Amino acid sequence: MEAAAAPSRHARGRVASRPGGSEEKSPPERRVYMDYNATTPLEPEVVQAVTEAMREAWGNPSSPYPAGRKAKDIIDAARENLAKMIGGKAQDIIFTSGGTESNNLVIRSVVRQFQTIHTSRGDTAKRPSPAEGATPHIITCTVEHDSIRLPLEHLAEERVAEVTFVPVSTVNGQAEADDVLAAVRPATCLVTIMLANNETGVVMPIPEISQRVKALNQERTASGLPAVLLHTDAAQALGKRRVDVEDLGVDFLTIVGHKFYGPRIGALYVRGLGERTPLHPMLFGGGQERNFRPGTENTPMIAGLGKAAELVAENCEAYEAHMRDVRDYLEERLVAEFGKKKIHLNSQFPGTERLPNTCNFSFRGPQLQGRSVLAQCRTLLASVGAACHSDQGDRPSPVLLSCGIPFDVARNALRLSVGRSTTRAEVDLVVQDLKQAVARLEGQA
Amino acid sequence: MEAAAAPSRHARGRVASRPGGSEEKSPPERRVYMDYNATTPLEPEVVQAVTEAMREAWGNPSSPYPAGRKAKDIIDAARENLAKMIGGKAQDIIFTSGGTESNNLVIRSVVRQFQTIHTSRGDTAKRPSPAEGATPHIITCTVEHDSIRLPLEHLAEERVAEVTFVPVSTVNGQAEADDVLAAVRPATCLVTIMLANNETGVVMPIPEISQRVKALNQERTASGLPAVLLHTDAAQALGKRRVDVEDLGVDFLTIVGHKFYGPRIGALYVRGLGERTPLHPMLFGGGQERNFRPGTENTPMIAGLGKAAELVAENCEAYEAHMRDVRDYLEERLVAEFGKKKIHLNSQFPGTERLPNTCNFSFRGPQLQGRSVLAQCRTLLASVGAACHSDQGDRPSPVLLSCGIPFDVARNALRLSVGRSTTRAEVDLVVQDLKQAVARLEGQA
Repeated sequence: MEAAAAPSRHARGRVASRPGGSEEKSPPERRVYMDYNATTPLEPEVVQAVTEAMREAWGNPSSPYPAGRKAKDIIDAARENLAKMIGGKAQDIIFTSGGTESNNLVIRSVVRQFQTIHTSRGDTAKRPSPAEGATPHIITCTVEHDSIRLPLEHLAEERVAEVTFVPVSTVNGQAEADDVLAAVRPATCLVTIMLANNETGVVMPIPEISQRVKALNQERTASGLPAVLLHTDAAQALGKRRVDVEDLGVDFLTIVGHKFYGPRIGALYVRGLGERTPLHPMLFGGGQERNFRPGTENTPMIAGLGKAAELVAENCEAYEAHMRDVRDYLEERLVAEFGKKKIHLNSQFPGTERLPNTCNFSFRGPQLQGRSVLAQCRTLLASVGAACHSDQGDRPSPVLLSCGIPFDVARNALRLSVGRSTTRAEVDLVVQDLKQAVARLEGQA
Repeated sequence: MEAAAAPSRHARGRVASRPGGSEEKSPPERRVYMDYNATTPLEPEVVQAVTEAMREAWGNPSSPYPAGRKAKDIIDAARENLAKMIGGKAQDIIFTSGGTESNNLVIRSVVRQFQTIHTSRGDTAKRPSPAEGATPHIITCTVEHDSIRLPLEHLAEERVAEVTFVPVSTVNGQAEADDVLAAVRPATCLVTIMLANNETGVVMPIPEISQRVKALNQERTASGLPAVLLHTDAAQALGKRRVDVEDLGVDFLTIVGHKFYGPRIGALYVRGLGERTPLHPMLFGGGQERNFRPGTENTPMIAGLGKAAELVAENCEAYEAHMRDVRDYLEERLVAEFGKKKIHLNSQFPGTERLPNTCNFSFRGPQLQGRSVLAQCRTLLASVGAACHSDQGDRPSPVLLSCGIPFDVARNALRLSVGRSTTRAEVDLVVQDLKQAVARLEGQA
């Protein structure tokens, strides 16, 4: 059914990429979107679920009469579908406005929990403080999304928390378990490492990290230290590879709808929400989401998120196989067309798993900076890194530099990310487009 | 065009209120929704705007290519429409996930601002601290929504801020300017009073409060005290009466889409955002909304909010006149059918403005508690108070008690709120329904 659905999605892709009243001089004849890591179109079934809920389930989910109960039922069903997608329990999932909120919420909550335990209140006696006092310590890595990096930098500036940014390996682009564990201190309360990087697609060794952290926690609790909780931002992994909270062994997992053909809201998985794992809300209000996330529920978007999750739970293997086939074909064609000397594949680390849809590469050459190449493209729609950094000028991606990619190569990087309906034929179009772009830039055309 | 649009909305209303697979014994033949203060259906034009954006503007607004620019254009246009609706500047509006977030954000931000000014940092020298030290003080009233009351109670418990809950007058249900001003202290940094109450519909004297606060601020700044900022939660007022930030003279105003036939997101108006009035973000991330509210923008919902705001800007007077006519007719019919002795109109305070759509009343009688009456109704869908309190059992509404409504009367209260398409014919149906409900409860049927 993938193939069947494809044309309509492509149609939408083309519409979306027409210069709808924008400043473009010469509207492109055909655009190929290869920026699915920036955002994805909504599946037609998702659009339908959102639209139906807008029309038929607009009641307040807190209202006791049928209009409200119908909305509540839709929200409960969506929660079940999210749980199925990640192999967790429905009661361990709360809906949020998106990944940024989910990530900020986890960080604030663990800091808050640390403070509640280590204040001079009555319960202090019961809970021994960590050796070096009452500043919580958090471990992350150097290639996280801004919605992890910036709140942590903010807490560090405010001296509310101490943060260790573990560098990723220049051999494999991963945050390695040894480095993460070596950074643990008595006051460490959280390790937050993304499941897959948005620019390189490198998959982080979360299961290994969680096993090591669990073992460590047994010693820690024995010696009266706080357990280290583990969070992973699964924004880029969901819908591209199997994500199972049991295999991952995480305490928190961030879900972002618009990365897996769903709407622009998100969710947060919390293992044993409110019991095994406390969650301190960021907002206070009408008691929705069991007070963990108050605010009248966005029923239509939640319905759409549930549908998107259902599709992933049912078809993830097919999506993954298709994307891997097309992405691998893209890399073959690039090397075949430009030659190994001209192309540097920035995210092929030997023996390291990566997302099946992401191809990060650079053309070698002084005039071939990523932005210049994209500006010359007439078919390809892609990016040089995270969309939220689209204003960063010609500075090379800090993520690639952290992975050990040389400055001149990183400055020329392009991130192409394919989707559920990208075809080999589109890859051929894109490769030809890139060929002409490079030729123009090198003055051969 | 109101009349023309009405049937379709009713159609949706009926669909929404069918017991979609719920436990109801005998499904009602015809339901009349009179709980528009809990939430509203989406206008067909709003559903269309959301659906079109989902299909055609799914690009990441931060992406530089056309798909992204189109989304950005839609967001900018929506911001203009919100600005038009409230008579403010587009650049003073940021989009949020809803009213709960907007209200929490204002409170956190002013506290944060107070702390930045009155910490032992370099800039302290320039800014004199308030006499009694560095705990910010906030003034609100006793009938605010939980998304104001609870964050303030939380800050007070944490001793992060001091809060004064000004009682509303038992004569007119209003938070009176005299009482608000009398509560001001040297460390007062915020007054937050809702524009209209969700249960009584009473309109608060915000213009008078703002004039008094402005005058006071001149003295305060002269004597080196922090200015008192003014916030109003306009959730219930928008779409029911003219709302103009210049007439109101507020520094912050909360906008909630689903109360004016828009989607389940919101916005916050901040006068001179980031310049005249600082705003400290609650979230950190990808820099969207000029870093005041990061997170990939919910383009479809923002498009719908913009459309809903455009409709309000164009038709608010017509909406108001229609709702007032129907609501006044409802109150006439209630008194005519049940008699002045049997009915107590809880929100008719002589000489006090109230929302045109809200009718809060009680039947007098020991068996006629609000919930019992609603349970007996076969046509009417309404509530006894705020939807998010639908689980509060038979305790009478704290809001009504604050307004001086006697316990026995408050316990029997019903809140009926009419909408843009409610008809006099529906009022007749509802009054008959109530008559039969009361008769059954009083054992006469």
